Amino acid sequence: MFESAELGHSISRNEWKKELPPLREALLDAQLELIQSRKFQVVIVVAGIDCAGKGETVNILNEWLDPRHVETHALRELTDEERERPEMWRYWRALPPRGKIGIFIGTWYSPPLLENVYAKTKNAELDQQLERIVHFEKMLCDEGALVLKFWLHLSKDQQKKRLKKLENNPLTRWRVTGTDWEHYKLYDKFRQVSERMLRTTSTPQSPWTIVEGTDPHYRYLTIGKAVLNALRGRLDSTAPSSAPEPVPPIMPAVDDLLILRTLNLDKKLYKKRYESELEKWQGKLNLLTRDPDFRKLSVVITFEGNDAAGKGGSIRRITQALDARQYRVIPVAAPTDEEKVQPYLWRFWRYLPRKGKFSIFDRSWYGRVLVERVENFCSRNDWLRAYGEINDFEEQMVRNRTVITKFWLSISKEEQLKRFNEREKTGFKRFKITDEDWRNREKWDEYEVAACDMIDHTSTEIAPWNLVEANDKYHARIKVLKTICQNIEKVLKK
Amino acid sequence: MFESAELGHSISRNEWKKELPPLREALLDAQLELIQSRKFQVVIVVAGIDCAGKGETVNILNEWLDPRHVETHALRELTDEERERPEMWRYWRALPPRGKIGIFIGTWYSPPLLENVYAKTKNAELDQQLERIVHFEKMLCDEGALVLKFWLHLSKDQQKKRLKKLENNPLTRWRVTGTDWEHYKLYDKFRQVSERMLRTTSTPQSPWTIVEGTDPHYRYLTIGKAVLNALRGRLDSTAPSSAPEPVPPIMPAVDDLLILRTLNLDKKLYKKRYESELEKWQGKLNLLTRDPDFRKLSVVITFEGNDAAGKGGSIRRITQALDARQYRVIPVAAPTDEEKVQPYLWRFWRYLPRKGKFSIFDRSWYGRVLVERVENFCSRNDWLRAYGEINDFEEQMVRNRTVITKFWLSISKEEQLKRFNEREKTGFKRFKITDEDWRNREKWDEYEVAACDMIDHTSTEIAPWNLVEANDKYHARIKVLKTICQNIEKVLKK
Repeated sequence: MFESAELGHSISRNEWKKELPPLREALLDAQLELIQSRKFQVVIVVAGIDCAGKGETVNILNEWLDPRHVETHALRELTDEERERPEMWRYWRALPPRGKIGIFIGTWYSPPLLENVYAKTKNAELDQQLERIVHFEKMLCDEGALVLKFWLHLSKDQQKKRLKKLENNPLTRWRVTGTDWEHYKLYDKFRQVSERMLRTTSTPQSPWTIVEGTDPHYRYLTIGKAVLNALRGRLDSTAPSSAPEPVPPIMPAVDDLLILRTLNLDKKLYKKRYESELEKWQGKLNLLTRDPDFRKLSVVITFEGNDAAGKGGSIRRITQALDARQYRVIPVAAPTDEEKVQPYLWRFWRYLPRKGKFSIFDRSWYGRVLVERVENFCSRNDWLRAYGEINDFEEQMVRNRTVITKFWLSISKEEQLKRFNEREKTGFKRFKITDEDWRNREKWDEYEVAACDMIDHTSTEIAPWNLVEANDKYHARIKVLKTICQNIEKVLKK
Repeated sequence: MFESAELGHSISRNEWKKELPPLREALLDAQLELIQSRKFQVVIVVAGIDCAGKGETVNILNEWLDPRHVETHALRELTDEERERPEMWRYWRALPPRGKIGIFIGTWYSPPLLENVYAKTKNAELDQQLERIVHFEKMLCDEGALVLKFWLHLSKDQQKKRLKKLENNPLTRWRVTGTDWEHYKLYDKFRQVSERMLRTTSTPQSPWTIVEGTDPHYRYLTIGKAVLNALRGRLDSTAPSSAPEPVPPIMPAVDDLLILRTLNLDKKLYKKRYESELEKWQGKLNLLTRDPDFRKLSVVITFEGNDAAGKGGSIRRITQALDARQYRVIPVAAPTDEEKVQPYLWRFWRYLPRKGKFSIFDRSWYGRVLVERVENFCSRNDWLRAYGEINDFEEQMVRNRTVITKFWLSISKEEQLKRFNEREKTGFKRFKITDEDWRNREKWDEYEVAACDMIDHTSTEIAPWNLVEANDKYHARIKVLKTICQNIEKVLKK
């Protein structure tokens, strides 16, 4: 697949002089339109063989574009804040918002490539890593990002020549290290693994462009034009970002085969028993967080459920057992404007905990397949693909030794009515019932179907849903605490 | 000053039982009002002597409040991302937004206290550190935050008893370390330094409350009530957060004594000379960033100036000389909603660079004393105090080995008109002149006075303003590059 990038492409000084000024004008114009319309963000990946001119190319792109709206990221040593999160966290935090351009050098492709060349991973493992990259980039594209990937190539001869040339020039000698020559000796292996990598990760939405790296002017023009064309294409496209689809109404289930209907919501715990169990499980939880190995893992807990099902009360029974320095509770509300210009999951990635810490989400990334689905806040396609994206997200947490526990707190329609009425009667403002609560209640059946679909699609082996019968608060709280303890214990013992 | 906190305050089991329920109710109600009104944020500092119950007290506060809107921070080891920024960066990033409560344990008081007790700092140095803390807290209060500070005290005897008791209980033995006993031996020194510290940092806006730590119930109730009273006081206050003041109009200066009028704006550089100078200073800048010691410092550059003075062009001449991975350009626009609920400088603190990196601000924190002052976007008091806050901010950067270079790009009124007209004629959309540009131009004299006042008040020895005659773009760009190079070189040589 690299053959056509070894034909000795180059352009003459005259061509360069002729083509450059209009290209730069057009690029700046397109960028300005991007900045003003904020239609999408651009993610440019520049990867490739050593010494093929990645750094210079990125510098040229920055020179051509308005640098106030471009940010460049290179793979560098992980900071300790990054090291304690799932591996993609560092990229999520660096994603450009809509209207901006993010240039990534090497990045998520470098580790899988190097590990495989140095035989630290088998091919099956490499394929898994690449599969994850494909998922990540697909998500970016589905969320509206323009993803452009350039692979700079050099033939074996050309790479040798480049290394020698750099070494012979006193000004550039510092750039050639032992690693470069070591990689050169492994050229054939690098080529073979790169080929596999590029083949697997070249998708219709984000294909690779392989660029011959020998002649810098050729390289710059080729990439500059490709960026321009892609930008213009997206800016000029009048097609709505997602085709309007007829939204089928959510049909209430005709029978009682819905999983949520199989729960015995009236499971009960009497006060005395509750009090002793509470002490037991809170004590247990506290003890678990003092385990020396606890510092090697993170805990994520999410709460979903019917309105008034007791999420807040359950959360308090957890935090009571913890040291306040160890946890953070994230009440999920409407996204801020910084969150709105990012892919959907961005606003949850930013709250992933460090090692030894809890992040407790009061409502979560499941909003997309619950409220956003039922209320038509997103397109059918958006929530349909969210199932897979969420499973990917949770899988990444688990691989990073995050104990993730998801709760669905379930109450009956009658119990909800009782609680709504009680709340309206009490004087405490904090329990005020809003019109929205009553409106949501009217859609009870639709929410039920959405919740059951969600459980079907996202109850995975590594992150199963825990359905909590919550008509009785005592029973619910103890089940929550017990489940968390068991999950942490399981991982600690591993 | 600790005498009254050694009187053996305690409360009976009955009082506790009687007072607790209404206090908790009232606290939750007040917190809900805070969450809904988003009137201000609350910063609670819990500090004090070892083993006086800081952790337990904070846990209790979290239990009493709604933990979804409280975040607790403790002094822990710095992460490498924090270590590369000014020391207060870690606290700025942890500040609660309006509507939330941030609880800080120990925090900015611990390092100065410990350093002085262990004789690493002289008293004069301690006083300087405390002075900075006073400034920081004053800024928080002026920005509307409610700052509450509690110091938990134990007498020497009580501390010894507490340590022994913890040691004798197998469940708490782990909490007593060698450091605790070491600190106990230094009790008198700790007491003396704490007293100095508390005296210096107890201000009318954010006074210390000293609480006897012996009886936990007394401690909890005292602090709980103090938090409630302060919250209620601020929530119920009908006084506008800053008293309305008559705003005196900005008077144009009657003579030519304004500093900006003393510039010879027509300084010129011819194209040929410009080209060779550009090569020289860009090369120099690039070389400086390759100095091995460069990795030990950070660079902050800010651009202010008349509209159309050439800020964007100057920035590009800087970035051209740098590797794209080294810099970030921050175009300062309207604050996002996450920025609006924080103190004014928060949105600049978040972009401070790591070591070896540049942050280039296209417009900056000086907006407050320029556009916000002239357009009455903030109160007179707000921009008046901004001078001092900005000087503090820059001083903190410099102490962290940040090379800060501030540019004012100055063009004449005629030159601006010429550039506006030219821009209106060109076809490039990116140079479009807006109505706002013309409106600002009408206020030329007022902006000039504001700029001169700004230069007067914030041209400090460590971070002086660089006034750049910019009628000739070539001259301006070279002066900018040269100034940056000289400033970096100066610090590298230190």
